[in-house]
Amino acid sequence: MRSALLVIDMLNPYEHEDAEPLKDSVRECLPAMQALIERARDSELLTVYVNDNHGDWSAARRELSERALNGAAPELIEPILPPPDLPFVVKARHSVFYETQLEYLLRQKEVDRLLLTGQVTEQCILYSALDAYVRHFDVSVVTDAVAHIDPTLAQAALSMMQTNMRAELIETRSVMP
Amino acid sequence: MRSALLVIDMLNPYEHEDAEPLKDSVRECLPAMQALIERARDSELLTVYVNDNHGDWSAARRELSERALNGAAPELIEPILPPPDLPFVVKARHSVFYETQLEYLLRQKEVDRLLLTGQVTEQCILYSALDAYVRHFDVSVVTDAVAHIDPTLAQAALSMMQTNMRAELIETRSVMP
Amino acid sequence: MRSALLVIDMLNPYEHEDAEPLKDSVRECLPAMQALIERARDSELLTVYVNDNHGDWSAARRELSERALNGAAPELIEPILPPPDLPFVVKARHSVFYETQLEYLLRQKEVDRLLLTGQVTEQCILYSALDAYVRHFDVSVVTDAVAHIDPTLAQAALSMMQTNMRAELIETRSVMP
Amino acid sequence: MRSALLVIDMLNPYEHEDAEPLKDSVRECLPAMQALIERARDSELLTVYVNDNHGDWSAARRELSERALNGAAPELIEPILPPPDLPFVVKARHSVFYETQLEYLLRQKEVDRLLLTGQVTEQCILYSALDAYVRHFDVSVVTDAVAHIDPTLAQAALSMMQTNMRAELIETRSVMP
Repeated sequence: MRSALLVIDMLNPYEHEDAEPLKDSVRECLPAMQALIERARDSELLTVYVNDNHGDWSAARRELSERALNGAAPELIEPILPPPDLPFVVKARHSVFYETQLEYLLRQKEVDRLLLTGQVTEQCILYSALDAYVRHFDVSVVTDAVAHIDPTLAQAALSMMQTNMRAELIETRSVMP
Repeated sequence: MRSALLVIDMLNPYEHEDAEPLKDSVRECLPAMQALIERARDSELLTVYVNDNHGDWSAARRELSERALNGAAPELIEPILPPPDLPFVVKARHSVFYETQLEYLLRQKEVDRLLLTGQVTEQCILYSALDAYVRHFDVSVVTDAVAHIDPTLAQAALSMMQTNMRAELIETRSVMP
Repeated sequence: MRSALLVIDMLNPYEHEDAEPLKDSVRECLPAMQALIERARDSELLTVYVNDNHGDWSAARRELSERALNGAAPELIEPILPPPDLPFVVKARHSVFYETQLEYLLRQKEVDRLLLTGQVTEQCILYSALDAYVRHFDVSVVTDAVAHIDPTLAQAALSMMQTNMRAELIETRSVMP
Repeated sequence: MRSALLVIDMLNPYEHEDAEPLKDSVRECLPAMQALIERARDSELLTVYVNDNHGDWSAARRELSERALNGAAPELIEPILPPPDLPFVVKARHSVFYETQLEYLLRQKEVDRLLLTGQVTEQCILYSALDAYVRHFDVSVVTDAVAHIDPTLAQAALSMMQTNMRAELIETRSVMP
């Protein structure tokens, strides 16, 4: 079984509605996310950044990184900036799989297990977990490294992923020895 | 705005795990579903049945109807049997859109609003609502005509559809005058 | 390497434009097709029928078989009628892969090599070969068991499949010992 | 009817097999391509660059431009470099539509007609024309602005697009007044 870490939607200028509760939640999981991404690098775990382009079709890693750094919370961006040598996939809608190159990339790399980190637990994380499950990927959600807007819906989303999508709920510290 | 009614996964032999609570819930919504399907027919609303093939790739409407009628709860099948003249789409996974002809069919018919009825609220209904939302269809969930297994997750699913997928929650009686 | 035989678009009422040259070509390859399908059955090679629904969304194997038998050339239908126990996939456009369940079915069956038979060499066969190639399936076109409308374009199509899609051009007699 | 110009696979380091005949053909159509792209800009025609990433998942517009400029034929790259403000879509396989964001982008922009320029006529141009046709886009191939490797197959490809995919074959000078 070959795994990959997906870092989802972390390049966010945080200027949208509901940005406040999201920023609070991101602030809380940022150390875990950062540790997770570093350990992935150290252990040569394939890491793929997938990020919404917010409707700008000329934007990719560099443009989305700059825009996020110039947004409302650069301190939440700086620690998890995607390095230039890692795969970066642009998405236009909520799921990381919808009309993107991601499934093809993962199949080429013979990945069959996905670790999910990023935002928002009850939205893009949930939808991406579902699309992964439908495609027969094993899914692990790193619960201390996913950020939410609505704590009640986030809890329900984790419960759905575990009960109905056979996702494993794990913590950063248990990801790698 | 042109609407279509989707009748999801109602051809079920009810022999799977968790069939008991599901049957109870279906029993409760069956009159509303039946009324909804009849009114759709009377008002010439496009109605599409979408059903899992349970892994049998030779099965379509007739085979799936027979198998369900020969299952554990024929009384839940008989009232909503798909008539031979309506569109019928086979699916192999949870979402009605995943690797099926449905989106193409709906675009050809110029449909942009979907009414959802069927089962299971916190699984296939939720996932189909999501995939419809991602594709920019307006979604209305007919809350008294969707059946669940887990009432708590079903409630959370309805809440997610309303809050995060802009779905309208409506009742059968308000669907048509 | 696990193979599957795809029988493409053979349920045709032959009432469309260009039906005459197509019927002539089908008449010529029908014995090879029939031998191929029989040998596939004898050697337990997975065989999947994929057929256009000609815009009728309520139609599946039985309806499409009946309609073709009631068309202009029942003698071209009868020998290759899809048996009820084989996988049957409905398509709405030219490629067998476009918005159908086929890729999912083939992945589930762990198929990685496709043998193509059916019609029309320079249209649906070519397009299906392309979509198979893009998805990394190995493709073999059974040249005496594919029917064409335009012999020049058919020849060019075979040449393209061989040169640019790495398809193998084989004859029925070499398919199985 | 809203049109868009697709510039396909022009960021090429020309270090692959068959690069020689392709470069000759590109050299011949480069003035027409350049004129086409400029006129598109002048008349505010939506222009989208779509380019293979040659297996490098960290690459987007800037990286692919640099690599092509550092390749075997920078003089074929410089005149058609994608400007930073235009949509740029990365693809991993031959068709511009296969597992990319392109269809979603075009639907969002309400485009229903595509003008194709780029390379290779009998490969990616043909396959993209097909995938556009299957999705009901009108297709125009700008014949003096598409480059080929094999002139015979290229001619057959143009013939197939015209005959079987209802593509219009036009010349640059007729695109805009």
